[in-house]
Amino acid sequence: MTVVAACQLAPTFGDPAANRERTATAVEEAVSLGAELVVLPELVSSGYAFEDAAEARRSAEDADGETIAVWSRLAAEHAIVLVAGFCERAADDVFNSAAVIDPTGLRAVYRKVHLWERERLVFSAGDGAPPLVETAVGRISTMVCYDLEFPEWVRIPALAGAQLLVAPVNWPASPAPEGQRPAEVVRVQADAGVNRMPVVACDRVGDERGVSWVGGTVLTDADGWVLAGGWSSDAEVIHVADLDLAASIDKRVGDLSDIHADRRTDLYPTSSWPSPPRLDRPF
Amino acid sequence: MTVVAACQLAPTFGDPAANRERTATAVEEAVSLGAELVVLPELVSSGYAFEDAAEARRSAEDADGETIAVWSRLAAEHAIVLVAGFCERAADDVFNSAAVIDPTGLRAVYRKVHLWERERLVFSAGDGAPPLVETAVGRISTMVCYDLEFPEWVRIPALAGAQLLVAPVNWPASPAPEGQRPAEVVRVQADAGVNRMPVVACDRVGDERGVSWVGGTVLTDADGWVLAGGWSSDAEVIHVADLDLAASIDKRVGDLSDIHADRRTDLYPTSSWPSPPRLDRPF
Repeated sequence: MTVVAACQLAPTFGDPAANRERTATAVEEAVSLGAELVVLPELVSSGYAFEDAAEARRSAEDADGETIAVWSRLAAEHAIVLVAGFCERAADDVFNSAAVIDPTGLRAVYRKVHLWERERLVFSAGDGAPPLVETAVGRISTMVCYDLEFPEWVRIPALAGAQLLVAPVNWPASPAPEGQRPAEVVRVQADAGVNRMPVVACDRVGDERGVSWVGGTVLTDADGWVLAGGWSSDAEVIHVADLDLAASIDKRVGDLSDIHADRRTDLYPTSSWPSPPRLDRPF
Repeated sequence: MTVVAACQLAPTFGDPAANRERTATAVEEAVSLGAELVVLPELVSSGYAFEDAAEARRSAEDADGETIAVWSRLAAEHAIVLVAGFCERAADDVFNSAAVIDPTGLRAVYRKVHLWERERLVFSAGDGAPPLVETAVGRISTMVCYDLEFPEWVRIPALAGAQLLVAPVNWPASPAPEGQRPAEVVRVQADAGVNRMPVVACDRVGDERGVSWVGGTVLTDADGWVLAGGWSSDAEVIHVADLDLAASIDKRVGDLSDIHADRRTDLYPTSSWPSPPRLDRPF
């Protein structure tokens, strides 16, 4: 079992130095709770609600910049794995990225592929698949927020053998029917269940230029059951759960069923679905 | 808006004549509630828990058999669309099928493609895509139960323009954490939300050879919010909701985002995912 902590924080907009400090405190608090893997929100280094790429660039850092350096020192000092969102500058581009860091340093950078709403006016879209990183706690993968809503994308690390999918997110609040679990949480549960792969989504709080957030940090087991998390929360909070990363190696969901082996790849169209198969059988 | 009724019934095992009568009564009750589209459970003509194909065959009927004839008369008489699961005999095969029927008669038969657990010892697997049927209430599609747990499969009718996905199901009960919504319902909500396509899953009740059921009939809107349904119910019940089938034509989920157009088909691997793309970026 692996103790995983997701730190639902309120970053300070446009202030990477303050956010380095805040995240360091949060990571240390998570470690004091026993965390072996710590997750931080999307763009926690910078905040989210940028007007344009020029503004985002002022809060962006290279993957060998100070924020990654601080996080790497924390990972080494506490012998943990750390997955966190950051605003990445790379030559002329600014990406909405997630870093996977362990005691040996930066292991992978993933650049968000599916850009939500105005993000496409701010960030360049990534074009790399979710990484699969062998760590001391198991094979983990990462993607960012809206990526989770594309089941094709979640399948990639799941089929490649990821034992845990860790997603920094910033879920903007939107109207929801009274009493129903947020749609984003429901989709995370389904992502997990149809792949028998636990998923951790670490959300943020703290109003920013009029945007508020679901505050829906959630940690599921391999079947998609919620082990920890909350929703409709405005609070900075650390959610902790004990995750069984060994469980996700076994894709059986019954005596004869296997949620991956039962896929009918012989029948699925190619990714572009250029012409949907036969419709409306003649009778 | 379209009034849709899902009739959560308890079929009589191995007695198609009794089930024809029971379903006729249920359809008439649904019509009296205003239903324009009526959904019945998986294998409602026959029951579910067959030992083997030979036993299933004794309760199976051709697609031009008496059950489809009765359902077709009901659809014509009440000017409704009817989607129902039935045990289909076709030459040497027995399929776990769903019929789409409207006042003009049988419009499509879909044969379950993803067979759950012991079903593979009883039924032949279908190899046809979910049909897309133009009806008086809109373009509808259907699949059966476990099919819903394969997002690739749900994408097919969604991308082809289905305005509603209707699924006869038989969800066997399994242990679930106290107070959590059944995993099957959560996955239906996600199927709907990531496609902006309402989904109706019509479950069954009534213990059968030691198998009991979730009783989790659910009707969602295009965003996956639950409009009607129940769970952990042992009761025969008709759940009714007013569904906006026009809503699902619009895949926008914000000012700039479109849940289908935002798919990165340039990056998705082909259906077989023979070799997952680059993993663990070098740093």
